[in-house]
Amino acid sequence: MEIIRDIASIKQIIKKARQEGQTIGFVPTMGYLHDGHLSLLRKAREDNQLVILSIFVNPLQFGLGEDYEEYPRDLTGDAAQAEKVGCHYIFAPTVKEMYPQGYSTYVDVEKLTDGLCGASRPGHFRGVATVVAKLFNIITPDRAYFGQKDAQQALVILKMTRDLNMNLDIIIMPIIREEDGLAMSSRNAYLSPAERRAALILNQSLIKAAAQIKSGEQDAAAVRAQILENISTEPLAAIDYVTIVDASELTDVVEIKGPTLIALAVRFGKTRLIDNIIVEV
Amino acid sequence: MEIIRDIASIKQIIKKARQEGQTIGFVPTMGYLHDGHLSLLRKAREDNQLVILSIFVNPLQFGLGEDYEEYPRDLTGDAAQAEKVGCHYIFAPTVKEMYPQGYSTYVDVEKLTDGLCGASRPGHFRGVATVVAKLFNIITPDRAYFGQKDAQQALVILKMTRDLNMNLDIIIMPIIREEDGLAMSSRNAYLSPAERRAALILNQSLIKAAAQIKSGEQDAAAVRAQILENISTEPLAAIDYVTIVDASELTDVVEIKGPTLIALAVRFGKTRLIDNIIVEV
Repeated sequence: MEIIRDIASIKQIIKKARQEGQTIGFVPTMGYLHDGHLSLLRKAREDNQLVILSIFVNPLQFGLGEDYEEYPRDLTGDAAQAEKVGCHYIFAPTVKEMYPQGYSTYVDVEKLTDGLCGASRPGHFRGVATVVAKLFNIITPDRAYFGQKDAQQALVILKMTRDLNMNLDIIIMPIIREEDGLAMSSRNAYLSPAERRAALILNQSLIKAAAQIKSGEQDAAAVRAQILENISTEPLAAIDYVTIVDASELTDVVEIKGPTLIALAVRFGKTRLIDNIIVEV
Repeated sequence: MEIIRDIASIKQIIKKARQEGQTIGFVPTMGYLHDGHLSLLRKAREDNQLVILSIFVNPLQFGLGEDYEEYPRDLTGDAAQAEKVGCHYIFAPTVKEMYPQGYSTYVDVEKLTDGLCGASRPGHFRGVATVVAKLFNIITPDRAYFGQKDAQQALVILKMTRDLNMNLDIIIMPIIREEDGLAMSSRNAYLSPAERRAALILNQSLIKAAAQIKSGEQDAAAVRAQILENISTEPLAAIDYVTIVDASELTDVVEIKGPTLIALAVRFGKTRLIDNIIVEV
C-alpha cells in the first residue's frame, strides 16, 4: 500500500488502472479510522479490483467554532489498519492541494440539506458536496462507499451524483456499533469516561423508539416526545435535534408509515454525536 | 449523424466509443447554430475522433423576464449544418430529462461571476455551470469547445473544471463575426433591420478602444469613457455595461497593462447583445 499526497500522482495511478481495465472502489474519509470505515473498505475490496481510501480533514465542511483544528488525525495508524483490509492506495492531500489560492467553486444540494445537521451546521453540506465532487473527479471510482451513521450525508451524496449525472454507484453501509451500542465515530475519542457512558442513551433511546413503533405507535410527535424524555434522563446530554423524517426525502413526518428515519444529534460536553435508525412500518 | 434525446442512450454510445479507445470532442450549445458554433465543431473534428454537439436551451440560465420561451430553436436546420462539418451525434435532451422532478443540485463559481453578465443576470452563471457540469459528466469528453464571444462564460467553465478537478481540456476559440463586424449570435435573429445596423457600433467602438490603447492610452477610465461616448451616438443602443477588466480574473483595471478584457453588453430594443476584445499592453 502506498500513500499519495498530490492529485497529479493519484490521477496517474488511476489512469494506469483504467488502462488495465480495473474496477475502482473508493472510500472517502476524514481519517482516524474505526471499524465503521474498515467495513466500507472491506466491502470495497469485495466489489472492486482496486481500492482507494482518501483521508482529508476538509476545512470547508467545518463551521466557525467547530472542531476542525482538534479533529483527531493519525495517518500512520490509519495506514496500518487500511493495509490490513486490503486497501491499495491512500490519497491524503494537503488543504492547499485541494483548495489552491483563489479556489471558488462550490456544489450545493438544496432541500435535503435544509434540516437535521444542515440546520445546525450552516455550510456543512456545501463543504461535503464540494469535496466529494472533487474527489469523485480525481478518483473516478466505479463505486463509492458511505456509512449510514451520517444518514443525511449519504443521501446528499446520492442526490448529488444522480442530479449531476455522475458515473458511479453509491453504496451505503450499515452503522457499526461498539459492543455496548454506541455508534462508532472518530469523535468518540473526545469523550471523557463519564460522557462515554452517558452517550449510550442515544442508541438506547433509538431502540426504544423502534420498539414503540413496532408495537403500533404511528404518531411521530409521540415517538419524538418519548425520545426527548429518554435522553433528558441523562444530565450530560444536551440535545441539538431529534427528528423523524421520510427516509429518502428527509421531510418531516406526522404519521409514521413507509421507510422512516429517526435521527438525532446530541452534545456531550464539547462533543457533538449523531446517531439514527431507519424503521419500516 | 444521429440525434439522441435521452441520457441513458448517449451514455451507452460514449461507453462504446471509450471501449474502442476513441477520443471525444464536445461542443455544448443552445442550438440555432451559426458560423461561431460551426468553428467549434470543425476544431473538435480536427482534434478528436468522435464529435458530440449538445443542443439544450437551458431554462436554469435564463432569469425571470428573459427570453427563454422566445429563444430561437431549429433542430432540423442545426442537424443539417452540424452533419456537414462532421459532427457524429447531437445530444438534444428535454428539460425533464435534464431536470427531473425534485432536481436540487447546483454548481456555483464565485468571484468570477460577480461582475459583467453575472451582475446583470443573477443566477445566470449558476445555471450555466450546473448544466455544463451535468453535460461533462454525461459526455465525459477529452476536450470541450467554447467561444470567446461569451468571454465570462468561458472563464467560468475553465475555473469550474480546474476547481472541481474535472478530467478534460477546455478550448476557447476566437469570436466569429459577420462581414460587417457584428459578432455572431443566435440572438442576432431578434434584431430588426434598423437594430441590426445600429448594433455595428459594438464592434466599432471596441476596435477604436483597442487602437486608442495601442497608441498609448493606459487609463481604463478614459478608454471606457470613449466607448460609452461612441455607443451613445447610436440612439437605438441602451448600455447594460461596458467594463475593462483583467482578462483572467475579471477584476476591474485602473491602468491597462497585461492581458485586458474590454467587454460590453448593450440592448437594442428587446435584444441584449454582448461583445468583447482582449488587448495586450
